[in-house]
Amino acid sequence: MQTDFTATRALFDIPEGLIYLDGNSLGPLPRAVPGRVAQAMQAEWGQMLITAWNNAGWMEQPARLGDRVARLIGAEPGSVTLGDTLSIKVFQAVSAALQARPERKVILSDNGNFPTDLYMAQGLADLLATGHELRIVAPEAVEEAIDETIAVTMLTEVDYRTGRKHDMKRLTAKAHAAGALAFWDLAHSAGAVPVALAECGADFAAGCTYKYLNAGPGAPAFIYVAPRHAATVQPALCGWLGHDAPFAFEQGYRPAPSTERMRVGTPPVLQMAALDAALDVWDSVDMADIRKQSLALTDRFIAEVEAACPDLTLVTPRDHASRGSQVSFAHPEGYAIMQALIARGVIGDFRAPDILRFGFTPLYIGMDEVERAAAILAEIMATRAWDRPEFHARARVT
Amino acid sequence: MQTDFTATRALFDIPEGLIYLDGNSLGPLPRAVPGRVAQAMQAEWGQMLITAWNNAGWMEQPARLGDRVARLIGAEPGSVTLGDTLSIKVFQAVSAALQARPERKVILSDNGNFPTDLYMAQGLADLLATGHELRIVAPEAVEEAIDETIAVTMLTEVDYRTGRKHDMKRLTAKAHAAGALAFWDLAHSAGAVPVALAECGADFAAGCTYKYLNAGPGAPAFIYVAPRHAATVQPALCGWLGHDAPFAFEQGYRPAPSTERMRVGTPPVLQMAALDAALDVWDSVDMADIRKQSLALTDRFIAEVEAACPDLTLVTPRDHASRGSQVSFAHPEGYAIMQALIARGVIGDFRAPDILRFGFTPLYIGMDEVERAAAILAEIMATRAWDRPEFHARARVT
Repeated sequence: MQTDFTATRALFDIPEGLIYLDGNSLGPLPRAVPGRVAQAMQAEWGQMLITAWNNAGWMEQPARLGDRVARLIGAEPGSVTLGDTLSIKVFQAVSAALQARPERKVILSDNGNFPTDLYMAQGLADLLATGHELRIVAPEAVEEAIDETIAVTMLTEVDYRTGRKHDMKRLTAKAHAAGALAFWDLAHSAGAVPVALAECGADFAAGCTYKYLNAGPGAPAFIYVAPRHAATVQPALCGWLGHDAPFAFEQGYRPAPSTERMRVGTPPVLQMAALDAALDVWDSVDMADIRKQSLALTDRFIAEVEAACPDLTLVTPRDHASRGSQVSFAHPEGYAIMQALIARGVIGDFRAPDILRFGFTPLYIGMDEVERAAAILAEIMATRAWDRPEFHARARVT
Repeated sequence: MQTDFTATRALFDIPEGLIYLDGNSLGPLPRAVPGRVAQAMQAEWGQMLITAWNNAGWMEQPARLGDRVARLIGAEPGSVTLGDTLSIKVFQAVSAALQARPERKVILSDNGNFPTDLYMAQGLADLLATGHELRIVAPEAVEEAIDETIAVTMLTEVDYRTGRKHDMKRLTAKAHAAGALAFWDLAHSAGAVPVALAECGADFAAGCTYKYLNAGPGAPAFIYVAPRHAATVQPALCGWLGHDAPFAFEQGYRPAPSTERMRVGTPPVLQMAALDAALDVWDSVDMADIRKQSLALTDRFIAEVEAACPDLTLVTPRDHASRGSQVSFAHPEGYAIMQALIARGVIGDFRAPDILRFGFTPLYIGMDEVERAAAILAEIMATRAWDRPEFHARARVT
């Protein structure tokens, strides 16, 4: 199968004329979503009421959608479930790893990790109050830092600021050789680059579905538990829907014998319906085609911008093997430059202190848009169009 | 203001002829919800994309909706925020209480509590592994069991099976007198009975919005932190949106100086939109009127059923002060009886081992429906219409 990107582009509702290079923050609206959510509201909730938990399949949704996501991240059937937020799933995965390595006290991460992973892990360590340490090194120092003190490596495969991609297979093998477990955050990987969790031997993984998977604002997170761990990990957040028999209403907790034990409370059915419709887009997509086209788009953007904008410093690796699906440039006036771009209809985002970030998503971004975006950026830089008071005024959320 | 229940009934979309006495499990669809969710999907997500976090107010939604819920539960403005599931919020509240009472080791609850509260608390105690005990007594033994060993009382105000209502004010005062903190689960209280968190001096509370608040399947939970604790409690689940400056992307966690520190990850925007629309119904409602009408409905149902069905045993308190907004009867064949009722268009639910449960929600249930439901139940009991093979076959979710 050769993925038809003209066909996938037609599956999205994107405002006319906008060049949307922020799908790595919030994917655009798939055309199938509003109808599917309306059905969940009216035909299911409205007409079936409580019986929809059985009759509309709401209770099985997290596992069913887990299998749809599993296909995109190289995971075994039954190994992925949906729910909660990525922060919560990070907590569960890291906690499970620490409980499986009780004699070790170090969580190893890097300073390119997204802050919520670091906060959740530190919060867990503080809560445990048993001498756990969150050890944070530079991304390039991670491999060297894996030793026999490490309980778990907690790494985000693709750096949210720089787009630098870790070598999952190599680092997982290094962790295992040292007796540690490996947890991978796939926030900027799922739907962006081919992921091979099973092949790499990852122990745990989690990610969100509102970026490259286009499931909408606040869409549920996913968590992966390697089948070899599924019957023994402690979920830490022991909610009734992770129980082996939730509707027996037993007084004591007995976890389900599978990844389903990582479920906690009632799933967000409307957001699950949106995710279900958003995943339809992927039925006709080959991740190898996505990767090939993503590299072509990012290569072109790098080349055009570097040729025209000498003041911007590339912070994304040139090496394909070390690059995710975004391109970032640094500039001291990065914030104002991004505001000027947005005013011209090119939507990227700014990440403190000085990063201009552009996500490239072959499903709905083509070479034409890359060239137009680069040309607009070149013009803004050449004319210093960013240097206007309104572009320096910071909004609360950027 | 006198609440007009004919007017509120018209705000819901309920299938013709159905008598829906399960709003204590999943409230029906408010007519305003589909349009509001469609707007969030199309005008906000679809057209505004990432900028909607600022421009459509998505980032402030949890606090804004928190204030709308606060009014219904007697909470101070700014003391409530929305997000995650009730299970997660139970974990945060109990954990915060334990961290505030480090010298005490007992979480006190009762065996009428909903299992997920017990599971989450036991999971927390196991995780901490510092000798914490989840002590579970009978509901009527709670008051006597509050002593100076207790760190926190974890009680659900209205029992999900029996409808028995604890005396929040009295038990909170008893907890405080013993030096303990009081956490209240309001799952079957919010929108069902008047709640006065501030007046009772509760320390923490949490609840869900998909039951009496009608916000739809998987709607977000709420958490209340008494203002006196808001600047000092440890959130345990330290997510980036509970940070004082989420978009500064600092490496270390600094909690927000308010209840907002209990936020964790990205809020479920579509479910929040549904909640927002569902809360509109409450703008014209006085909780005192709800309570008066609820007691009239439950009194009538009890009287009619007891007169006609001698084999059913009332398990809900007759005393108004001890009753929530539901009525439950026990019968060894409760499961089959409920299936027969559902087949006749009367929707209640069954809770193991033998409870027939009926929720009464004045917003959309009137005296006519109470009488029709009681008459149908009487006929089913008199004719043993429940004793057919299809009514004994158990579905997985009931």
